[in-house]
Amino acid sequence: MPKLVKRAKKKLGLKPGAVVYVGEHRTEKVEITVIDYDESNYREIKVDKVEDCFPFKDSPTVSWINFSGIHDIPLIEKLGEGFGLHPLILEDLVNTGHRPKMEESEAFLFVVIKMLSLKPDNHDLLSEQVSLILGPNYVVSFQEKPGDVFDSVRDRIKKTVPRVRFMNSDYLGYALMDAIVDHYFVVLESIGERVEALEEELVSNPASGHLNTIHNLKRELVLIRRAVWPLREVAGGIERLESPLIKDATRLYLRDLYEHTIQVIDTVETYRDMVSGLLDIYLSSVSNRMNEVMKVLTIIATIFIPLGFLAGVYGMNFDTSASPFNLPELGLPYGYPMFWLAVVIVGGGLFWFFRRKRWL
Amino acid sequence: MPKLVKRAKKKLGLKPGAVVYVGEHRTEKVEITVIDYDESNYREIKVDKVEDCFPFKDSPTVSWINFSGIHDIPLIEKLGEGFGLHPLILEDLVNTGHRPKMEESEAFLFVVIKMLSLKPDNHDLLSEQVSLILGPNYVVSFQEKPGDVFDSVRDRIKKTVPRVRFMNSDYLGYALMDAIVDHYFVVLESIGERVEALEEELVSNPASGHLNTIHNLKRELVLIRRAVWPLREVAGGIERLESPLIKDATRLYLRDLYEHTIQVIDTVETYRDMVSGLLDIYLSSVSNRMNEVMKVLTIIATIFIPLGFLAGVYGMNFDTSASPFNLPELGLPYGYPMFWLAVVIVGGGLFWFFRRKRWL
Amino acid sequence: MPKLVKRAKKKLGLKPGAVVYVGEHRTEKVEITVIDYDESNYREIKVDKVEDCFPFKDSPTVSWINFSGIHDIPLIEKLGEGFGLHPLILEDLVNTGHRPKMEESEAFLFVVIKMLSLKPDNHDLLSEQVSLILGPNYVVSFQEKPGDVFDSVRDRIKKTVPRVRFMNSDYLGYALMDAIVDHYFVVLESIGERVEALEEELVSNPASGHLNTIHNLKRELVLIRRAVWPLREVAGGIERLESPLIKDATRLYLRDLYEHTIQVIDTVETYRDMVSGLLDIYLSSVSNRMNEVMKVLTIIATIFIPLGFLAGVYGMNFDTSASPFNLPELGLPYGYPMFWLAVVIVGGGLFWFFRRKRWL
Amino acid sequence: MPKLVKRAKKKLGLKPGAVVYVGEHRTEKVEITVIDYDESNYREIKVDKVEDCFPFKDSPTVSWINFSGIHDIPLIEKLGEGFGLHPLILEDLVNTGHRPKMEESEAFLFVVIKMLSLKPDNHDLLSEQVSLILGPNYVVSFQEKPGDVFDSVRDRIKKTVPRVRFMNSDYLGYALMDAIVDHYFVVLESIGERVEALEEELVSNPASGHLNTIHNLKRELVLIRRAVWPLREVAGGIERLESPLIKDATRLYLRDLYEHTIQVIDTVETYRDMVSGLLDIYLSSVSNRMNEVMKVLTIIATIFIPLGFLAGVYGMNFDTSASPFNLPELGLPYGYPMFWLAVVIVGGGLFWFFRRKRWL
Amino acid sequence: MPKLVKRAKKKLGLKPGAVVYVGEHRTEKVEITVIDYDESNYREIKVDKVEDCFPFKDSPTVSWINFSGIHDIPLIEKLGEGFGLHPLILEDLVNTGHRPKMEESEAFLFVVIKMLSLKPDNHDLLSEQVSLILGPNYVVSFQEKPGDVFDSVRDRIKKTVPRVRFMNSDYLGYALMDAIVDHYFVVLESIGERVEALEEELVSNPASGHLNTIHNLKRELVLIRRAVWPLREVAGGIERLESPLIKDATRLYLRDLYEHTIQVIDTVETYRDMVSGLLDIYLSSVSNRMNEVMKVLTIIATIFIPLGFLAGVYGMNFDTSASPFNLPELGLPYGYPMFWLAVVIVGGGLFWFFRRKRWL
Repeated sequence: MPKLVKRAKKKLGLKPGAVVYVGEHRTEKVEITVIDYDESNYREIKVDKVEDCFPFKDSPTVSWINFSGIHDIPLIEKLGEGFGLHPLILEDLVNTGHRPKMEESEAFLFVVIKMLSLKPDNHDLLSEQVSLILGPNYVVSFQEKPGDVFDSVRDRIKKTVPRVRFMNSDYLGYALMDAIVDHYFVVLESIGERVEALEEELVSNPASGHLNTIHNLKRELVLIRRAVWPLREVAGGIERLESPLIKDATRLYLRDLYEHTIQVIDTVETYRDMVSGLLDIYLSSVSNRMNEVMKVLTIIATIFIPLGFLAGVYGMNFDTSASPFNLPELGLPYGYPMFWLAVVIVGGGLFWFFRRKRWL
Repeated sequence: MPKLVKRAKKKLGLKPGAVVYVGEHRTEKVEITVIDYDESNYREIKVDKVEDCFPFKDSPTVSWINFSGIHDIPLIEKLGEGFGLHPLILEDLVNTGHRPKMEESEAFLFVVIKMLSLKPDNHDLLSEQVSLILGPNYVVSFQEKPGDVFDSVRDRIKKTVPRVRFMNSDYLGYALMDAIVDHYFVVLESIGERVEALEEELVSNPASGHLNTIHNLKRELVLIRRAVWPLREVAGGIERLESPLIKDATRLYLRDLYEHTIQVIDTVETYRDMVSGLLDIYLSSVSNRMNEVMKVLTIIATIFIPLGFLAGVYGMNFDTSASPFNLPELGLPYGYPMFWLAVVIVGGGLFWFFRRKRWL
Repeated sequence: MPKLVKRAKKKLGLKPGAVVYVGEHRTEKVEITVIDYDESNYREIKVDKVEDCFPFKDSPTVSWINFSGIHDIPLIEKLGEGFGLHPLILEDLVNTGHRPKMEESEAFLFVVIKMLSLKPDNHDLLSEQVSLILGPNYVVSFQEKPGDVFDSVRDRIKKTVPRVRFMNSDYLGYALMDAIVDHYFVVLESIGERVEALEEELVSNPASGHLNTIHNLKRELVLIRRAVWPLREVAGGIERLESPLIKDATRLYLRDLYEHTIQVIDTVETYRDMVSGLLDIYLSSVSNRMNEVMKVLTIIATIFIPLGFLAGVYGMNFDTSASPFNLPELGLPYGYPMFWLAVVIVGGGLFWFFRRKRWL
Repeated sequence: MPKLVKRAKKKLGLKPGAVVYVGEHRTEKVEITVIDYDESNYREIKVDKVEDCFPFKDSPTVSWINFSGIHDIPLIEKLGEGFGLHPLILEDLVNTGHRPKMEESEAFLFVVIKMLSLKPDNHDLLSEQVSLILGPNYVVSFQEKPGDVFDSVRDRIKKTVPRVRFMNSDYLGYALMDAIVDHYFVVLESIGERVEALEEELVSNPASGHLNTIHNLKRELVLIRRAVWPLREVAGGIERLESPLIKDATRLYLRDLYEHTIQVIDTVETYRDMVSGLLDIYLSSVSNRMNEVMKVLTIIATIFIPLGFLAGVYGMNFDTSASPFNLPELGLPYGYPMFWLAVVIVGGGLFWFFRRKRWL
Repeated sequence: MPKLVKRAKKKLGLKPGAVVYVGEHRTEKVEITVIDYDESNYREIKVDKVEDCFPFKDSPTVSWINFSGIHDIPLIEKLGEGFGLHPLILEDLVNTGHRPKMEESEAFLFVVIKMLSLKPDNHDLLSEQVSLILGPNYVVSFQEKPGDVFDSVRDRIKKTVPRVRFMNSDYLGYALMDAIVDHYFVVLESIGERVEALEEELVSNPASGHLNTIHNLKRELVLIRRAVWPLREVAGGIERLESPLIKDATRLYLRDLYEHTIQVIDTVETYRDMVSGLLDIYLSSVSNRMNEVMKVLTIIATIFIPLGFLAGVYGMNFDTSASPFNLPELGLPYGYPMFWLAVVIVGGGLFWFFRRKRWL
């Protein structure tokens, strides 16, 4: 389960704008991939040195430069120089605990966003920070680690789907964000299935482990909520942006993206409602069960404790020879059958009593 | 019970604007009905090919084109070409999990709305998405499956009710939305009856099954809430729209529609309040009942356990012949009656104690 | 107890603006009373036919036309024609489940409001819809049934209180609304008294019936809340209205009315807070009581079960003659006194234990 | 404890603007004190007749006229005539249940505010309504009963503290409101101490009486909240007022007053949070305690009930002479010691079981 | 644990603007340190007399004057005269219970902010008020006691980090606030670790002490929340300020500061959510545990109480010689083995019953 808060102490005491990676420790080399295309051409290049990306900044073709990691600080700083990024932007870029946000500068748009996905093996929630630098004809994207949800976008660019190719970097940026938000629905669907499965199980057979499941669902919803609420502002903000970076033709798509984030929020809030409803069901099923346990105890004890007393009475050793008043029942020829008659009457009476109380 | 969230994985990885039906699998042929009328004429036609609808788009008469299903994607796409609908609109149209919304374009108004109804046999809640394309003199409506709440509108058009006939497509669109919202009241009334029946039963005789009923009511209210909150914005938005598509004479009716959605919201919120009140009643009635069970157990055990001890004492086998201090009571002529006297005194004392504690 | 939601199925499928009464079935004749006055004259007339009201519409005197029922639909429709009321207004007028609202048209102001009162015999809450048509020199008021809270207004008009007489219909309309809101305070005061009485009782002697009382209080507060929250908008709306119908001299009074509705809201919210506080008290008093029951059971069982075991031990029939190790205590001369000594020691020890645990 | 809602039935049916005192019944004579000062002079006068105040209205000196009661309606009405107060203002002035508010007229500012203080003997919360009429060079203040929190203001005026003397009525009005708000902090501090004391006690030794204390704290916080939330609007409103009555030099102080009310609100909300936290602690400590009681019962019963059964077995009277299979243990030479061995084994086993379950 | 509300009674009755220290009693001498620098020079001076600070006010170099305490009122007042501070500002400065706020005057900006840190030994939360006077080329900072979080800022100034040296007082002020907010993350991280540790422990082994831990976490979060919500307004307010005191180059950093406060708020709210989730877990684990206790009791009692009754029956002393109906079982040759058979059957039956109920 991803931690809810990440920003760490190593940040402390550094000057503002200090570029410090605060995520999990990583050592692998950061891969830089460039996809460069225009209406008629398409190239995909693995870049070794960050300096090799710089020409793409001002080339007329649309370029998508993707970094598969942000733990290599010198590399990020070199890129910052090459693309003219303010130190504060670099700081946000490598701070993996940052809130989703959008920042406009003259030359580009800077977007921080959370990419959610499910671990293929056990459906655990994975959260990764993705930052986008959206320039006039380039998009630079930064991921925390290799592996992403952008394959569909790559496919579409490669397969000459005209819309992506002919449109500019703003549409590419939108396509990346749309791919991320589309994956939110996958994650939510998986949560939805778990919620509904849990719901059925709780009603039929609640167990104490369910409390933990409920708690984990709550936690995941908190995480998604933290990712998507600020995203709404980001999506809405880009749509309303009066900037030459955003073409009018793209605005319609951004509006669509905005609506999708609203729908994600809506769904998250609904699930939160449902999950707290599940807690209520769980708690009252525990309560019901204790009630049932109590009833069984009470029925048994209430029937047999008085009968035990009766048996105890006739187990007393009063000297029957001392006086005719001492336990005369013991000498009666039908004393024992009468004892059992008393047992049946007392037991039957209590049975009737419990019936009337609807305990049986 | 309808699922709360529908958008499914098959959507994933497709380009934005891809027209993909995500509802239940359906194969039946989509029926297209056209009702075409003006002040003096009225026609109702079943259309076989979608192309046959296109002439109605520009005819001077008012035309209502209804699709009884949205699972036939090629048909929808053909319609989109004929009526000039943007791919994103087609995408929303067939995405049955979409949030209610209103979108204005130059040529038409696009409205997505949820139609709620009750299953005739068991009063289950049914939710279906209805989309409307409201053009200058036509309305195209899309339903998920045959069967709707529009019969009253059809009747009014057929029976020459002048208002509907003489007014234009904006009033027709309003009439369809009004029919849907009117059905919300039917659904709410049914829920209201269930809430009040449950309330009475809970007070007189709470059972563990009621928890489930409460949970189902909550869930249905969540569903209606999700349908009606965005509807408020839709209704308010259309009313305020500065568009030649909406005539001033219709605005008064749209205002009325808006007020009805407010009233539905108001009622839903009230029911939510009441249903959580019912949960409180249920929980404390369970608690009360456990209390009562405990009291019975305590009274019986508290009376008979000490008496059982007393009987046990006189059942001991101390050797009375060894010393006069060993169980001298056993040899007393009135030992046994005195034992019963002690039983009556102890029992009576505890009875008095329980009375004072108000347990009896 | 009044139902919380009223709009009924009979409305379904009718055209918008259809005038359908949805309240309780009533058959009595609707009484129409006209109070007509100016600075120097005063008349009170019972009108038989609704047409007889029409002249008052344009007379220079101020006229208050009151309908004691709204179930006679033809009568209402005739009035609508005579006073030029839009069908949608007539629809709202007879829909007794409508939300309080204010609607401005050129010729008049239409106000829907809830009149709350207490049943004289058992202090049940009664809710009735009152609609006002406020024209330039007339006020038409509609009630659901005879009997209202307007007697003080009638008295003031009759007794030549100059302010009412000399002022115009806007002040009269204000006076009617003020009388209704003043009655809200009466209702709230009665609820307040019940809340405080319940509070005292809960602390001294909680009983299971109190849960029901709490639930009923909650329900009544929901009802008043539903009546008064929209009323705030109505009162505020009329005050801010830029209409020749409202004179500036009346605005000060409308401001006062607005403040009173705020105070009602404030009080309702405070009571809601208090009532949920009462639920907490009730629940934890139930819990406390169960705790106490448990303690009694535990003390008795914990003392006597071990003692019972001891008595059982000395009631065993081991053959003392078979060996000196078999129950040698039975043959001791002071065996029985020593048994009682053990009883006192065990009992005293447990007593000390319970004291330390603060159970006694 | 002061009642939460005060407006009473005697108000009902009167015309708006009717001046009716609704507070506790009082008969003592209302004392009127005038403090009249300018830069160089200072007078303090007890006024017998209300007419004697009128000259101060237009005198060039600053005058503070204080009424120690508002139950003498004719006196208030006479004052109203003399100072030109609208009947609605007089109505609010004597309605002790009014919400704090500020009303501007051309000639003066009318402020209603709640004065909170602690009863000296038992620290009960006292709430009193104070109204201020703030004219160009006079302030009239109305209290419900003698005794107030204004002594510090009087002292400062008397002791020639220049700031108060040289500044005008607006600063005097501010000083009075500031004295009232300063007292809110005293009240809150007392509540804070009670909250923290209760917190410590609850953790160390929760008792059922604490529930009541929690409820009382909640109630007092509701009362303060009702007094201070509208006060915020009042303070903010006066600060922003564009009126010649408020000098710019005073605005800085009014800003300070506004911040103090914000701080009071902040503190009240924090205490409310804490008090509901206390309720949680209380409830779960009750729950913990019941758990502990249950454990003791279970341990004792679980150990001794099986042992009691065993003793019972060897107390049975099967005829050992009838067959060697009947209770052969009784005749064993070491039967009794073996019985005790069994007791020790069973008891020890259960002890180990409870240890493992962490019950001991 | 720091107290939540601090403003004390000693304030009462003083004139507004009275400078009264309300924090803990302190007697140590207040240390005044001045750090004075420009592009090329750097000086750090300990100042003995407050008058020695005055020249720095108008010197062209940037000066940071730090007070290590605010309990020396005459000193503060002298400073107020020297730097031209309004009495109300001095009042706020020494009132350690003040809400974070920002106040603009012509000559300077006045900022009140809370500095949070962890006690090094036991990680208790420490809260201290820091006030800043931000003038054109000086910053005066006031702390409650020696020791702060500004060492990193001092280091950066000293080590000729150009950015700090070359930028003006506005950047210095920002750097101080940034250092404080950075420490919030340290505090939050520590709380986060405690929350996650508690979470794991609660699931594996809940104990009654955890309730206290939860309560303390809640309390600390309330404290941080109170510090950071108003801080958001402060940071946002300074950023938007149209004042020559704030250079445009600094605004970007202030924006960053604002975002950090948003992130702190976000994290605090998430932790609050989580902590109340922990309370739910705790409460239902207590409930589960009681359930388990009850089950053990019920199983033991339900099995052995009926068996005890059976043993009691055969311990009765009915006179077998009086009639063949009196306890004939006792004389059977296999009576005792049959008794044990009955025990095994009853025990086994109940075992099966408990299995079916899933209690075992």
